[in-house]
Amino acid sequence: PPSAEFVARPSGIASMFKLPIQDSPVGLDAAFVGVPIDTGTSNRPGARFGPRQIRAESSMMRVYNGSTRAAPYQSLMVADIGDVNVNMYDLKDTCRRIREAYQKIVAGGCIPLTLGGDHTISYPILQAVSEKHGPVGLIHVDAHADTSDVVLGEKIGHGTPFRRCVEEGLLDCQRVAQIGLRGSAYSADAYQWNREQGFRVVQAEECWWKSLTPLMTAIRKQVGDGPVYLSFDIDALDPSYAPGTGTPEIAGLTPSQALEIIRGCRGMNIVGCDLVEVSPPYDTTGNTALTAANLLFEMMCVLPKIKYF
Amino acid sequence: PPSAEFVARPSGIASMFKLPIQDSPVGLDAAFVGVPIDTGTSNRPGARFGPRQIRAESSMMRVYNGSTRAAPYQSLMVADIGDVNVNMYDLKDTCRRIREAYQKIVAGGCIPLTLGGDHTISYPILQAVSEKHGPVGLIHVDAHADTSDVVLGEKIGHGTPFRRCVEEGLLDCQRVAQIGLRGSAYSADAYQWNREQGFRVVQAEECWWKSLTPLMTAIRKQVGDGPVYLSFDIDALDPSYAPGTGTPEIAGLTPSQALEIIRGCRGMNIVGCDLVEVSPPYDTTGNTALTAANLLFEMMCVLPKIKYF
Amino acid sequence: PPSAEFVARPSGIASMFKLPIQDSPVGLDAAFVGVPIDTGTSNRPGARFGPRQIRAESSMMRVYNGSTRAAPYQSLMVADIGDVNVNMYDLKDTCRRIREAYQKIVAGGCIPLTLGGDHTISYPILQAVSEKHGPVGLIHVDAHADTSDVVLGEKIGHGTPFRRCVEEGLLDCQRVAQIGLRGSAYSADAYQWNREQGFRVVQAEECWWKSLTPLMTAIRKQVGDGPVYLSFDIDALDPSYAPGTGTPEIAGLTPSQALEIIRGCRGMNIVGCDLVEVSPPYDTTGNTALTAANLLFEMMCVLPKIKYF
Amino acid sequence: PPSAEFVARPSGIASMFKLPIQDSPVGLDAAFVGVPIDTGTSNRPGARFGPRQIRAESSMMRVYNGSTRAAPYQSLMVADIGDVNVNMYDLKDTCRRIREAYQKIVAGGCIPLTLGGDHTISYPILQAVSEKHGPVGLIHVDAHADTSDVVLGEKIGHGTPFRRCVEEGLLDCQRVAQIGLRGSAYSADAYQWNREQGFRVVQAEECWWKSLTPLMTAIRKQVGDGPVYLSFDIDALDPSYAPGTGTPEIAGLTPSQALEIIRGCRGMNIVGCDLVEVSPPYDTTGNTALTAANLLFEMMCVLPKIKYF
Amino acid sequence: PPSAEFVARPSGIASMFKLPIQDSPVGLDAAFVGVPIDTGTSNRPGARFGPRQIRAESSMMRVYNGSTRAAPYQSLMVADIGDVNVNMYDLKDTCRRIREAYQKIVAGGCIPLTLGGDHTISYPILQAVSEKHGPVGLIHVDAHADTSDVVLGEKIGHGTPFRRCVEEGLLDCQRVAQIGLRGSAYSADAYQWNREQGFRVVQAEECWWKSLTPLMTAIRKQVGDGPVYLSFDIDALDPSYAPGTGTPEIAGLTPSQALEIIRGCRGMNIVGCDLVEVSPPYDTTGNTALTAANLLFEMMCVLPKIKYF
Amino acid sequence: PPSAEFVARPSGIASMFKLPIQDSPVGLDAAFVGVPIDTGTSNRPGARFGPRQIRAESSMMRVYNGSTRAAPYQSLMVADIGDVNVNMYDLKDTCRRIREAYQKIVAGGCIPLTLGGDHTISYPILQAVSEKHGPVGLIHVDAHADTSDVVLGEKIGHGTPFRRCVEEGLLDCQRVAQIGLRGSAYSADAYQWNREQGFRVVQAEECWWKSLTPLMTAIRKQVGDGPVYLSFDIDALDPSYAPGTGTPEIAGLTPSQALEIIRGCRGMNIVGCDLVEVSPPYDTTGNTALTAANLLFEMMCVLPKIKYF
Ligand SMILES: [Mn+2]
Ligand SMILES: [Mn+2]
Ligand SMILES: [Mn+2]
Ligand SMILES: [Mn+2]
Ligand SMILES: [Mn+2]
Ligand SMILES: [Mn+2]
Ligand SMILES: [Mn+2]
Ligand SMILES: [Mn+2]
Ligand SMILES: [Mn+2]
Ligand SMILES: [Mn+2]
Ligand SMILES: [Mn+2]
Ligand SMILES: [Mn+2]
Repeated sequence: PPSAEFVARPSGIASMFKLPIQDSPVGLDAAFVGVPIDTGTSNRPGARFGPRQIRAESSMMRVYNGSTRAAPYQSLMVADIGDVNVNMYDLKDTCRRIREAYQKIVAGGCIPLTLGGDHTISYPILQAVSEKHGPVGLIHVDAHADTSDVVLGEKIGHGTPFRRCVEEGLLDCQRVAQIGLRGSAYSADAYQWNREQGFRVVQAEECWWKSLTPLMTAIRKQVGDGPVYLSFDIDALDPSYAPGTGTPEIAGLTPSQALEIIRGCRGMNIVGCDLVEVSPPYDTTGNTALTAANLLFEMMCVLPKIKYF
Repeated sequence: PPSAEFVARPSGIASMFKLPIQDSPVGLDAAFVGVPIDTGTSNRPGARFGPRQIRAESSMMRVYNGSTRAAPYQSLMVADIGDVNVNMYDLKDTCRRIREAYQKIVAGGCIPLTLGGDHTISYPILQAVSEKHGPVGLIHVDAHADTSDVVLGEKIGHGTPFRRCVEEGLLDCQRVAQIGLRGSAYSADAYQWNREQGFRVVQAEECWWKSLTPLMTAIRKQVGDGPVYLSFDIDALDPSYAPGTGTPEIAGLTPSQALEIIRGCRGMNIVGCDLVEVSPPYDTTGNTALTAANLLFEMMCVLPKIKYF
Repeated sequence: PPSAEFVARPSGIASMFKLPIQDSPVGLDAAFVGVPIDTGTSNRPGARFGPRQIRAESSMMRVYNGSTRAAPYQSLMVADIGDVNVNMYDLKDTCRRIREAYQKIVAGGCIPLTLGGDHTISYPILQAVSEKHGPVGLIHVDAHADTSDVVLGEKIGHGTPFRRCVEEGLLDCQRVAQIGLRGSAYSADAYQWNREQGFRVVQAEECWWKSLTPLMTAIRKQVGDGPVYLSFDIDALDPSYAPGTGTPEIAGLTPSQALEIIRGCRGMNIVGCDLVEVSPPYDTTGNTALTAANLLFEMMCVLPKIKYF
Repeated sequence: PPSAEFVARPSGIASMFKLPIQDSPVGLDAAFVGVPIDTGTSNRPGARFGPRQIRAESSMMRVYNGSTRAAPYQSLMVADIGDVNVNMYDLKDTCRRIREAYQKIVAGGCIPLTLGGDHTISYPILQAVSEKHGPVGLIHVDAHADTSDVVLGEKIGHGTPFRRCVEEGLLDCQRVAQIGLRGSAYSADAYQWNREQGFRVVQAEECWWKSLTPLMTAIRKQVGDGPVYLSFDIDALDPSYAPGTGTPEIAGLTPSQALEIIRGCRGMNIVGCDLVEVSPPYDTTGNTALTAANLLFEMMCVLPKIKYF
Repeated sequence: PPSAEFVARPSGIASMFKLPIQDSPVGLDAAFVGVPIDTGTSNRPGARFGPRQIRAESSMMRVYNGSTRAAPYQSLMVADIGDVNVNMYDLKDTCRRIREAYQKIVAGGCIPLTLGGDHTISYPILQAVSEKHGPVGLIHVDAHADTSDVVLGEKIGHGTPFRRCVEEGLLDCQRVAQIGLRGSAYSADAYQWNREQGFRVVQAEECWWKSLTPLMTAIRKQVGDGPVYLSFDIDALDPSYAPGTGTPEIAGLTPSQALEIIRGCRGMNIVGCDLVEVSPPYDTTGNTALTAANLLFEMMCVLPKIKYF
Repeated sequence: PPSAEFVARPSGIASMFKLPIQDSPVGLDAAFVGVPIDTGTSNRPGARFGPRQIRAESSMMRVYNGSTRAAPYQSLMVADIGDVNVNMYDLKDTCRRIREAYQKIVAGGCIPLTLGGDHTISYPILQAVSEKHGPVGLIHVDAHADTSDVVLGEKIGHGTPFRRCVEEGLLDCQRVAQIGLRGSAYSADAYQWNREQGFRVVQAEECWWKSLTPLMTAIRKQVGDGPVYLSFDIDALDPSYAPGTGTPEIAGLTPSQALEIIRGCRGMNIVGCDLVEVSPPYDTTGNTALTAANLLFEMMCVLPKIKYF
């Protein structure tokens, strides 16, 4: 993509990082894809505009990672392949559309970097990813466990995706880590089910006041060499950093911890990533979307083929 | 409800107009009901918070209509009966829940004054209302005709409610008026189907620069003495007056025209009213919700039993 | 003041119209004064920051009136004399402070052009003005009559100033006009008391769809040659034009009508003007304050000494 | 109250945590009460809408404390008893009204959990609480000491409540802790008077970079078994977490520290709590109110009768 | 472009109206082009993000004009050809870049529909257009005349473009109409120079309270069959409709008048159009950009080749 | 300046800290000066309104530093000397105007405390400062190095000022420290050039999780007794604390670290300070400007002549 040294930031169609736009994932090492829904949301909506806003704010990003020396565009063939055409009026049909779209994306080995959309989408994405790679490890960064069984009488929604994934055998439960969980709960022992599945559960309280680099060393060991999916719910961050989200919980992670988590994924066999739950109507300064763009850039910078200078 | 002369406006639980809150419509002449959904929306969401925000801003309203001399609280037994418990994840199930809730409300003769919610809700409400009263006349104030057959492959959504109503015989088509229609269209002859049903279609262009009082005289004649439902989509207003809505169209009606329309319904046999599509996340000043509260107050002030001093 | 042709708009201390700042009104034909209170407000506060925000936005104004050819700075000695030092914690003491400050301002013949502040302030200002000039005529532009007797048990507040003025004989009631009144009311015959005092009451409904130039011709006749005070509550305007105010009422006046009203005061013996109820926290775009700055500019442009080219 | 598992978050009248609404505190262990004033504020107003906005955002809260395993609704009879009917135009009369209202609330042993309103209110609340319990210990979390003697010539306002409390013997000064104090000052030795009374003064600088759990251990020892009142001014938090407040001071506490402070009160004999100074007009994302709702939930979760699972 | 009946509005890369994106104007009848600058602005900046925001909001637009029955996509080959790569740090160099870019666009007969950017850009665009077509007629809709000679010592800026155009002979002055002019002025006879050039000057005061359809009949006669350029400064609209702009002036045109003006251009030989001065940071609801998208759609719908059904 | 104990915060003309306004720096130890430009900005504009907004929010500040016991107004003659009259349309000419204005300010020994404006302004300011004091040490707090050579083909802009300063010998490179640098980069080794000049480069990653007091001890040693200039780009702070800026980068410094840095400059021979890049249109709560006002207050409190009590 063009550098801001030569093309003014406000100039140009708002594709992700001003990357080329194409319809097909063929020939790509990785692709940015949008899934613009919020009909799986329980509280504030707006995540349907997450992909558009993240793309708009992504014009701030330069071409190198100044901290890790990653050179993504010299390492990967990458493009913006647009959005899944979702059904705004039927969430279950939307899930089917997502699954089918991702089956095509991952078929040829392209790694999807997803711009959400609410967290419901990780379920059909993981159906497609797991169909390709088998049960995957999961780095799940979130304020919420998203493993409810039924909410408002429904099995599908942004509070249930990973329950469905476990039920369908899409996850290698011993290689799952959930980071940043917190907030009021539906039961007194809120994460019991998760721990019973073998998940590593890292509550936000364990993260306060410290670097997460040691944690990531442990998690890299936990996930080993098998395929790993990274799912980052922007509400993992404290709402001061990411107000533009639907179900904010106080006392969350910091962006520096987010960077430590993602940079700590370097060396893993990442087969897909998503950044979900950015809700532009509540992102009064645009900085939640900008943070999302930064985190997606960092995700791209830890993909297996990346070269560092 | 308490007058602002005696209870400070910021004080007190935010029920509609600070009216008493009760669960049941029994014994009421009219009731305010919220239907907090936006999963039928095609563009900007947020109408799920419409009822809450309209109630909050309704604390501005005093107890008399200073323009028409209506004295609603000396004329009617009226209360706030809370919200329908909707299913955020399944729009069709939500429609069933609404229909069943309104069957109970209208059963004993209580007139529902609905706080939306997106316009999808008028369909199940009219199912219940028509079941009680037979096919009804309709005053439909909107930027949009809302008579699409299928959108994104779906029959149910905020672009289709009145098509469904016609199909199910809920409307007395010769007694239907649509006011304020405008905007870009899916076909060159955008309102042909509507006119074929016998609807009076009044495009926004016909409303520019003038009072709608003469129009309402004609419409009162058109609807006669039979039951009439009033459905007011806040996007009928120009977006300058009502920015807090999901699918704004420029060059719309003015609040003075809205008052003329509603005040022009005096004398009709109103059996239900709704005010829909208020989306608080886009209502940056709260004034869209405040306008909605005013219009709902005016609707209450033209119900059949109202006395004027 | 400097023209924007020579000094960039964002540049310079934010005095009113970038006029010279001075402590004393001595030698001035007219002076801008701020009265930064909102403790007389019944609903949304914020008017305490009205003077600051109006001054900030006033940097848009140029030095001539392009429509009336008034040349204020070639006609008048005018300056910004800062704000009254109000008591934020005691409204009655604030009124005393305002009255005393204005007694000094009007003593030498300086005409005060006031930046409010909530409407409570017109009462002590009129005490001082009337002490100097005798009972005055009043052009009162507002959504509200502001003639309540008691609100929340109190005699002083933004709903009562003109009742107090009448009681104290500060107004020449036959020379009072109230324009733009509307909204829900505390009694069915909302403006009865006002009409009984001899006020001309022009409800908003009488203003819809038309120019107010004919009205102003009549009012000029009504007020004759005696001293006249102009009190403009920004909520007279429809909230679409002036969202930044505390007690908005829908279906109000337009800015073009506001200009017609103020320009229609040309030829009157204006002895003071105020522009009140601008509440910056609700003025999300700054345009309410900008409108206020425009209206204050127009007020200055109809003062008795103004020359037109 | 209903769980968000069964009732959609946007649905229902906005009482605190969707608790039952009742007029009387009789039979309650604890009650949420609103005191909607901001006329004691020195800078940005808006706290009059604090109670309404906190209630609205409280719909996010679930029924258990997932971190401490507290089960408040299985431990306590608790309800929302509405707001004190304040006098917007006279701060001293408002104080009288608050004191009288709280005398009734505490009479039968109900613990008040107050939604402010500006900090002035803690003075009349403590008059009532101390009348019931004798001089109380105080955990005062704030950016400001709020112990000025006179401001703008006045004894009553949000900068003076605890000075008045000390003068009237309402506090057991050896059992007072003030946490989070900072900012520019009226004198070089800003907290001298406080320390002379025996207060523990913990400036924000002492809190940077660390957990406050050790501090709370010391404070629990300090306050012992006597009655303790917890007064939490939301401006104790850094403005990044709580922008919606009137007198923000940079470099404040974090929400994690706030949780440590409140959770650290477990075991104290809490006789009342307040959360004050939430100003919705400056809370552009609603997250200040949401934070307040969380902190009030945590306060409820450390009341003496609470059971943990 | 895809219809919102089949592709959800939030879905897809934000090109103008979701039109195909291409680099070259070859083969196009018309093309949307962005010129993202605001360095020619005198007051509030932000217009550099105008093109991006207009494209984002343009996703609301459907494929037919429901009012005029124009079918643009069945009439024209049209695409989005991206933005001019401007120099943010040197306005004069930016003008050169714009001129050169437009020389290429108009060379093969493609009609440019420009998304501004501040009004400075009309000058270099008209250099290119006039080089192709000879001196052109001009429909200039604006609050400002934009014919200052020098501002802040500079010849180039958003207050001077049409002065430069006249000096360089780019305009056929007898075929120029300026509509909507108003506001305070740098001299008492603000539009004297313009009238001396032969321009028709229609001040906003002449537009209040009425349809502009008769005016457009006169202007169609004035401009005849020669080439005409349409330059629409969004600040021509009243700030209530278009708050997102840099130099708002009160009492402006309405969107219905804007539609009458543009629809009134039907039959003219339009050779280019621009819509300038949309400033997203001040467009708190997105509706200024949405209005701009509507007006650009209407401009497309009056181009010479358009068919109406 | 008046204390908020005696003059209400909303009251009075918005000069910096309500200090006296004067044209000339003669007789002053230090002066606040505004430089209202943003035409050197690469991304979001708005910094042209930085000085105005910082002054407005500075009304919160009291007269003593409660943390360091500095008494600035008993130590220094200080005033607000207004703004440089910049050329909004030509950045190079603006630089000339700034340089000439600052030559006059520093001539008599007055220390300039600058309210920016984008970071371009530090270049001409340092031309003037260095002309007076010789090459200066520099404490540069920023997310960005601002040492690009050419951006968009231009030498002058907010990404290049310190490159120009080095080229012109204005800096004593061994006494330069850059703190807080981070973000994506134009090359893999982003700060190589800087380190080659002898700068101390402290990346943000080195600052996470800790106090910067030890760093400042080292830097005080590094800069010794020679003249030092302090340039603080508000984007050094994490965007959660300072959203109102043009090129935000995530994971930045905290306000507590900012205070440690500035307070750590006590004892240096400070000859000038600036606080740049505050962009009010993106400062939705005003708290970025408030933070800037606090930091400028702290800068004043470490000037050489300051007395501590
Ligand atoms: Mn999630
Ligand atoms: Mn989550
Ligand atoms: Mn509708
Ligand atoms: Mn509609
Ligand atoms: Mn008033
Ligand atoms: Mn009023
Ligand atoms: Mn306090
Ligand atoms: Mn405080
Ligand atoms: Mn223009
Ligand atoms: Mn203009
Ligand atoms: Mn910088
Ligand atoms: Mn920077």
